[in-house]
Amino acid sequence: MPEKAFQDYYPDQWSHCYGCGRLNEQGLQIKSYWDEETGETYSIYHPRPHHIAIPGYVYGGLIASLVDCHGTGSAAAAAYQAAGRRMDDGGPPIRFVTGSLHIDYLKPTPLGPALDLRGVIREVKGRKVIVDITLSVEGEITARGEVVAVQVPDHWSLITGEKEQDELR
Amino acid sequence: MPEKAFQDYYPDQWSHCYGCGRLNEQGLQIKSYWDEETGETYSIYHPRPHHIAIPGYVYGGLIASLVDCHGTGSAAAAAYQAAGRRMDDGGPPIRFVTGSLHIDYLKPTPLGPALDLRGVIREVKGRKVIVDITLSVEGEITARGEVVAVQVPDHWSLITGEKEQDELR
Repeated sequence: MPEKAFQDYYPDQWSHCYGCGRLNEQGLQIKSYWDEETGETYSIYHPRPHHIAIPGYVYGGLIASLVDCHGTGSAAAAAYQAAGRRMDDGGPPIRFVTGSLHIDYLKPTPLGPALDLRGVIREVKGRKVIVDITLSVEGEITARGEVVAVQVPDHWSLITGEKEQDELR
Repeated sequence: MPEKAFQDYYPDQWSHCYGCGRLNEQGLQIKSYWDEETGETYSIYHPRPHHIAIPGYVYGGLIASLVDCHGTGSAAAAAYQAAGRRMDDGGPPIRFVTGSLHIDYLKPTPLGPALDLRGVIREVKGRKVIVDITLSVEGEITARGEVVAVQVPDHWSLITGEKEQDELR
C-alpha cells in the first residue's frame, strides 16, 4: 500500500470530512489509492460492530458513505492525472464534491471482514468525473455504486460566501 | 409529534440499525412519522458538529443515511397502510431493506439547523415500495433522494441462513 492516500493530499480545510477527513477524529477516515496494475482505484475499510443493519450485516448508509468518499477521492486523483499533475505538486488543489450518488444493494453485505472498494474512472469531462464503484467482501460483490463528482471552483475557499455557493448549484 | 415513530414499532432484532435502530446507542436513531395532513412522511434530524463535509456544510454520506432509513421506514409504514394494518397490531412484522438508493445533491446543505426530510410514497407494488424524499434546511430543498425498498421474506429471522439470504438477492 502506498504511503499516502489521495485524501492525505487534501489541504487542511478539506480534511474535516466525516467520511474521509484525516482531521476528523470521529469520522470514518476512508483512504483511497491507485492500483498501478489495473488503473483502478481501491480502498479497504474495516467496519466497526456498530455499523450494523440487521444482525450480521453492514449498514447500507455506511456503504453509501464509503462509495461517496471513495468516489470523490478517485475523481480528484483522476483529474490530477488528466491534467498531467501530481497531487503533491504544490499547485492549486483540485477537489470534488458529489453531484449525485447511486447505490444498488445486490445482496446483504456480511459484517466482519474487510470491505473492498474498487473504482473505475468512467469519464473525465470538463469539471465532471464519473466513477463506477464496486464493494466486495471476500471476493463477492455485494453492492455497486456510481458517483458523479463535480469539481469545485478554484477560488472556493474555506470561507465560502453566498456567491461562491451559487456556482456549485 | 406522535409518541412513537415507525422505527419504534420494529421488533428488537430489527432495531440495531446504525441509522435508525432504537437499540444502537452509537447510531443516528432516525425517527419517521406520518404527516396526517399531507399524507407524506417526515423526519427531523439534528446533525452533530462532526457530521461535516467541508466547514459549514453537512456530510453527504449522512444525507444518504437519513434518506436510506427514512425511506425504508416510510416503506414499512406504507405497506402496513396498504394492507389495512396498524404497525402495533401484533401480527407478523413487515420490514424492508434498501434495494437501491439515489441522491441528487442540489446544493451544499448548511451544518447547524435541523434537517427536514419529507417522503412521498410513489408506488406500493407487490413487495416493492418506492419513496421519493426531499431534504430541506429552513425551507430550502438541498437534496432529493429515491429509495427502492424491498420487503424481506416473512420468515427472514434473526438467525439468517444462507438459504434465506438467497431470497433477498
